[in-house]
Amino acid sequence: MSRPTHRRPEYRKINKDLFVLTYGALVAQLCKDYEKDEDVNKYLDKMGYGIGTRLVEDFLARSCVGRCHSYSEITDIIAQVAFKMYLGITPSVTCNNSSRNEFSLILDKNPLVEFVEELPAGRSSLCYCNLLCGIIRGALEMVHLAADVTFLQDRLKGDSVTEIGITFLKKPEEKKYRRKK
Amino acid sequence: MSRPTHRRPEYRKINKDLFVLTYGALVAQLCKDYEKDEDVNKYLDKMGYGIGTRLVEDFLARSCVGRCHSYSEITDIIAQVAFKMYLGITPSVTCNNSSRNEFSLILDKNPLVEFVEELPAGRSSLCYCNLLCGIIRGALEMVHLAADVTFLQDRLKGDSVTEIGITFLKKPEEKKYRRKK
Repeated sequence: MSRPTHRRPEYRKINKDLFVLTYGALVAQLCKDYEKDEDVNKYLDKMGYGIGTRLVEDFLARSCVGRCHSYSEITDIIAQVAFKMYLGITPSVTCNNSSRNEFSLILDKNPLVEFVEELPAGRSSLCYCNLLCGIIRGALEMVHLAADVTFLQDRLKGDSVTEIGITFLKKPEEKKYRRKK
Repeated sequence: MSRPTHRRPEYRKINKDLFVLTYGALVAQLCKDYEKDEDVNKYLDKMGYGIGTRLVEDFLARSCVGRCHSYSEITDIIAQVAFKMYLGITPSVTCNNSSRNEFSLILDKNPLVEFVEELPAGRSSLCYCNLLCGIIRGALEMVHLAADVTFLQDRLKGDSVTEIGITFLKKPEEKKYRRKK
């Protein structure tokens, strides 16, 4: 994978419908393959993780974001730069706890479900967009940030918004390392 | 699926890497599911067909292309408008026979394989991008044009270019209808 980094940004742009429909085909295939929603969700997360680990390098090169100094800054970058770049939307961000390591991305619109009216029959526990959680988790891990990323609300399940929760986890090694310093 | 047609085109644009990597995950999943390359190819074509039938309506609304009067014009629209819109590339077009119903789209670059160095081990007959053939076939069928669409050459298989062949098929009903007029 040797790709020049000087490409014009407009060269990278495409119409998103093809992506949205291809994603739908992927989810449909996984629903064929796995009987349990939990297994489909797990697999989407795993696939997303792999995609996130590959996407992050390009993201950092193209977005030119600087070093972040807080989880809050990182979450803002995810919402305002990454989501904008890859999905054309900017979720709003809320911080959910006083230790400032739990955040929510609130998606008013979710382009990934644009062609989806409702969850497939008998698939009420499906996290249709779980690939996104995996991507965020994978990308964060590549910059040495462990996080739990899950859907907290989903319009496809009747919630009023779609909400992705990100909980940044401190690694035991990190704490130990800090104590040693 | 009720979507307004007046959306600004830039709203529809996204960075293509996410799509390219998600497509890779889809192909990998199908390779897990189906032992034979032929079955993966068939399934990708079938999935693409479904996508094409849904994509074409939006394509016609957004692209504002007029009525075409020849297979040659149609192929030019596919190459210059549809490929540009959905994949950001413009393949060159050649006509391959004197009755002017066989064409080739020649892709110098193929964004779908940007992250792929070679076909997976033991998958030498895989048509990695066969989704594209299905999409073209499905979209054409929705405007009442039957066509065979297949890969004739593929850089991933060591060919110097990637070439998609489109053969427009005249339907028996159409001929009968024309005779009656």
